[in-house]
Amino acid sequence: MIDPVNDVDQGGQTVAAVGEFGLIAELTKRFPTGAGVVLGPGDDAAVATFDGGQVVATTDLLVERRHFRRDWSSAYEVGRKAAAQNLVDVVAMGARPRALLLGLGLPGDLPVSWVLELADGLAAECDQLEVAVIGGDVVGSDDVVISITALGALVDRAPVTRAGARVDDVVAVCGRLGWASAGYAVLARGFRSPRVVVEAHRLPEPPYDAGEEAVDLGVHALIDVSDGLLADLGHIAVASGVGIAIDSDTLEVPEPLRTVGTALNVDPLAYVLTGGEDHALVGTFPPTATLPERWRAIGRVTETVAGVVTVDGEAYDGPTASYDHFSR
Amino acid sequence: MIDPVNDVDQGGQTVAAVGEFGLIAELTKRFPTGAGVVLGPGDDAAVATFDGGQVVATTDLLVERRHFRRDWSSAYEVGRKAAAQNLVDVVAMGARPRALLLGLGLPGDLPVSWVLELADGLAAECDQLEVAVIGGDVVGSDDVVISITALGALVDRAPVTRAGARVDDVVAVCGRLGWASAGYAVLARGFRSPRVVVEAHRLPEPPYDAGEEAVDLGVHALIDVSDGLLADLGHIAVASGVGIAIDSDTLEVPEPLRTVGTALNVDPLAYVLTGGEDHALVGTFPPTATLPERWRAIGRVTETVAGVVTVDGEAYDGPTASYDHFSR
Repeated sequence: MIDPVNDVDQGGQTVAAVGEFGLIAELTKRFPTGAGVVLGPGDDAAVATFDGGQVVATTDLLVERRHFRRDWSSAYEVGRKAAAQNLVDVVAMGARPRALLLGLGLPGDLPVSWVLELADGLAAECDQLEVAVIGGDVVGSDDVVISITALGALVDRAPVTRAGARVDDVVAVCGRLGWASAGYAVLARGFRSPRVVVEAHRLPEPPYDAGEEAVDLGVHALIDVSDGLLADLGHIAVASGVGIAIDSDTLEVPEPLRTVGTALNVDPLAYVLTGGEDHALVGTFPPTATLPERWRAIGRVTETVAGVVTVDGEAYDGPTASYDHFSR
Repeated sequence: MIDPVNDVDQGGQTVAAVGEFGLIAELTKRFPTGAGVVLGPGDDAAVATFDGGQVVATTDLLVERRHFRRDWSSAYEVGRKAAAQNLVDVVAMGARPRALLLGLGLPGDLPVSWVLELADGLAAECDQLEVAVIGGDVVGSDDVVISITALGALVDRAPVTRAGARVDDVVAVCGRLGWASAGYAVLARGFRSPRVVVEAHRLPEPPYDAGEEAVDLGVHALIDVSDGLLADLGHIAVASGVGIAIDSDTLEVPEPLRTVGTALNVDPLAYVLTGGEDHALVGTFPPTATLPERWRAIGRVTETVAGVVTVDGEAYDGPTASYDHFSR
């Protein structure tokens, strides 16, 4: 959406007009790379060599009212979720999260108790994985802003990228799909139930231990579902130059999502296919791999059409639960 | 400054009442540490071991109108300065900056050209040190927010902390003092000259190559001057459990600072002693060290009073150029 006033003033395009992904592509072109960089921008996390060791690094910025609401989530929940979404990015590289850095922008009139509860939530999520909080920054700002950088180790393994999918691979997912976005839809309508989806929106439960498991199973490409299953599989399809064919019969639509769909008059499959923020892991595995039960096969990697994800043989054109960060 | 409304509502203290350093102390208590952590929060940067290698990591959050103004600095200058203040934190550990991650919060109506100029400035600063930009995040926000995480390598060296100062060490500084804060004072009064101090505010010139030089000279403690000479030497004095005695006769007060002092009716020594953001390096060296000319000896490490920095034998009680992030 172009802002006409600004467009006249500046004689150029606005951030909203170019959008998040367009802007990232332009930025990436401008940035220097270096000898020690194993993997630059564009995957769940970057990989660089330091002093002999490989480090996996990822960063996220969360802004009040855009990424969380203080009236919808407790500070503890915001802290846990902020940590979770970064830690799982490290896990999605097949790596082990080790350390986290935290930047906080805080209004001066914010109660200290809110900040300390946020810290407790962040610490609780880190404790699950024995991740240390090693540094940070605290500054003033009008809205609460949280920046998190997570660092991980690869322990003598190669990183698992989005670019490794091969034709005939089995696409399999581990973790919940659509729960958080159904919870968001409920909260946005002013409701507080079904409680399980509202809880899922507040506190994601990424399958942290499934990343290294996927590596052990020979996974070729891996990503965490933060933007939505189709969007994130699209990232794999584009990066790997393959097609991905999803079979909707294999996708479970759990009871709470059906309840939300009925209440809001939305096909609940939309939450499963396009809802983000549950941080399930989805990967492409060799057809010979024997997958444990929690990895559900949902489709195949195909030769055509490169870069395209289909559902039951067609492009998905149903309703979508995702949103662009610049067009609220 | 306690906000009475909020205090009544919440029955607790506000962020402004506790202040930046009080809050950081409370947060640090809550955060988990880990086996691979060589150095946690509280220094210029943290150090952790990954996959065999030592990594130095530091993060900063910059918020429009708090840390930069779009009408005072070009996007290119903001980008260079944001990178500089993080890269020098890595340098102040005796390490070599290698990689940077960038988080951007951007209003939708911001011109894309502004963002790309910011990126060019960031890239230019990184290029000086062959630092790669390896990852990032772009989100929407009402004000421009910039989060930067810089990572560096120690190349088989121990990190130089704030805690290593020893009695009888020589205190020496490399780089400019007070120029940026004099520039800030000028801009805040609506002036644009002297041009050299305004430029210094917009584009710091940290002595990047002086960090490893200091290590080669046997430096015991090292910090970059971001909060002001006395404040940052105070960090060394507290962390090392020593006193530091500065001799004001050794401090040069350059002509542009005297001009600003006369115009604004302020003793220009205040800029030198309390102005931050020039990112000079200040260290404590063994008395036997032969310092190159650019390292100016300005004082001594003393046994008493531990944690206290004196100027000409007394606590400094002149005007101050620094400011707390929560009390604009």
